[in-house]
Amino acid sequence: MQHAKIGIICGGGVFPPAVAETLTKQGRGFVLFLLRGFADAAVERYPHHWLKLGKLGTLFGLMRKEGCTELVMIGSLVRPAMTQIGFDLKTLMLLPKIARAYRGGDNTLLSSIAKLIDDEGFRVRGVHEILPELLMPEGPAGRIHPSSDDEADIALGFEIIRAMGPYDVGQAVVVAGKRVLAIEAAGGTAEMLSHLAELRAKGRVRFSGRAGVLVKAPKPKQDRRIDLPAIGPDTVAQANAAGLNGIAVEAGGTIISDPSAIANAADTAGIFLSGYKAMP
Amino acid sequence: MQHAKIGIICGGGVFPPAVAETLTKQGRGFVLFLLRGFADAAVERYPHHWLKLGKLGTLFGLMRKEGCTELVMIGSLVRPAMTQIGFDLKTLMLLPKIARAYRGGDNTLLSSIAKLIDDEGFRVRGVHEILPELLMPEGPAGRIHPSSDDEADIALGFEIIRAMGPYDVGQAVVVAGKRVLAIEAAGGTAEMLSHLAELRAKGRVRFSGRAGVLVKAPKPKQDRRIDLPAIGPDTVAQANAAGLNGIAVEAGGTIISDPSAIANAADTAGIFLSGYKAMP
Repeated sequence: MQHAKIGIICGGGVFPPAVAETLTKQGRGFVLFLLRGFADAAVERYPHHWLKLGKLGTLFGLMRKEGCTELVMIGSLVRPAMTQIGFDLKTLMLLPKIARAYRGGDNTLLSSIAKLIDDEGFRVRGVHEILPELLMPEGPAGRIHPSSDDEADIALGFEIIRAMGPYDVGQAVVVAGKRVLAIEAAGGTAEMLSHLAELRAKGRVRFSGRAGVLVKAPKPKQDRRIDLPAIGPDTVAQANAAGLNGIAVEAGGTIISDPSAIANAADTAGIFLSGYKAMP
Repeated sequence: MQHAKIGIICGGGVFPPAVAETLTKQGRGFVLFLLRGFADAAVERYPHHWLKLGKLGTLFGLMRKEGCTELVMIGSLVRPAMTQIGFDLKTLMLLPKIARAYRGGDNTLLSSIAKLIDDEGFRVRGVHEILPELLMPEGPAGRIHPSSDDEADIALGFEIIRAMGPYDVGQAVVVAGKRVLAIEAAGGTAEMLSHLAELRAKGRVRFSGRAGVLVKAPKPKQDRRIDLPAIGPDTVAQANAAGLNGIAVEAGGTIISDPSAIANAADTAGIFLSGYKAMP
């Protein structure tokens, strides 16, 4: 079966190269749209165009020229102030819709932009649809398993992520001994973990030895085609630096860049990484 | 009417001196129990005993010797690891109860300790019962009023605090343009605001100019005799440093150390500070 050529909007981090590498191995046609200021120049070795934020007209033109009918968005992005974006004419025409979406959480914003792209006749696809092999499976990835105390913290963590759903916030939380240590908001998971490591170093959060679990899952109402939670070896290193026992994610709802590398990273750090079925 | 002599367990910060000063002016009998490592030596000018965490036997003995029948807990406290506490015999006997409470949020822990004290025949009172004049009233404290956009963020903030209620977390949140920027967990409000200021400085959270409101309120299920939210001029300075438009708190559910000082601080910083009736 002949696949359509895929356009991939790339932010920063390890996921754009992982996706490009996997698609190349599979012999699928794709072209990267690298967001200036966010994407890593290392992915320039794949077919690509550099693109500035706010240039939807340019994006749509390049998509048509390249013959892409499907679009995937991947990688990290810091949400800029609207005044920092240089808009092209097409984007300016769509600006009333974008401005409305700007008043809200990331999910509101990204879903609205996905809808604008859909409306242009392209199809926004999720990484999980294009490359299901990059999704975290159920069960522990490495040799270490969560304890029963960890399991209680994990259950509470997933429950809180669900409770936060209506507010478009909290794709990740840290729970230790049934006490909530951190809830992710602006800044992302890496920032949350480094802040927690800092609070522990300063003695503002005190435990003897390792404690707590990072729990990460898609927001209940989020459009899974965009901003699916992602973890990589750096997440394992950050969880380890924050003194946690391990990481729990939603199986089938979390992107991992390299399954064997991340299992090794967890084993080396001495923490667990485990996938859980989504709650019904 | 003759008031009972009040015992006051003091953590750190500006509230223990404010309470001691107000009670002195009113001519009420009290004695401070200053927690070593937390309380400020500046309050040594009032009748006091120094006390270590974990010495409930000592506390109960001193309370009886001083003729105190009521006890108030006030000031900031970093929750120590249980292994860092030196327990006396009385506390050791109560340890199974304390250890259970340690697995849970701050509210669980503090309520359990209040119950242990009640069971000894003392009466744990809230600051709001003893000194209602230290509670934030309804409406703006200074000259600056919230905008209608701010009001929308404030409503969302109170809603999130309510939604977090079952999880014993989140006495404060920051909302900007209907987007949740931060949720307080371990570390407290000052840490949350300084982390947000840092994220803005690093460009991880971007806005043009001032944005957002700090919303602070008691957790819905919390025992209001303990750990009532408190704000002081330092909170105003921290909210200003984080680039916020203002602060919204629950009227009658928030302690302020010095009403005129805090109104001046808000006016000087150019931000609002406003009290809102608790949601039904």
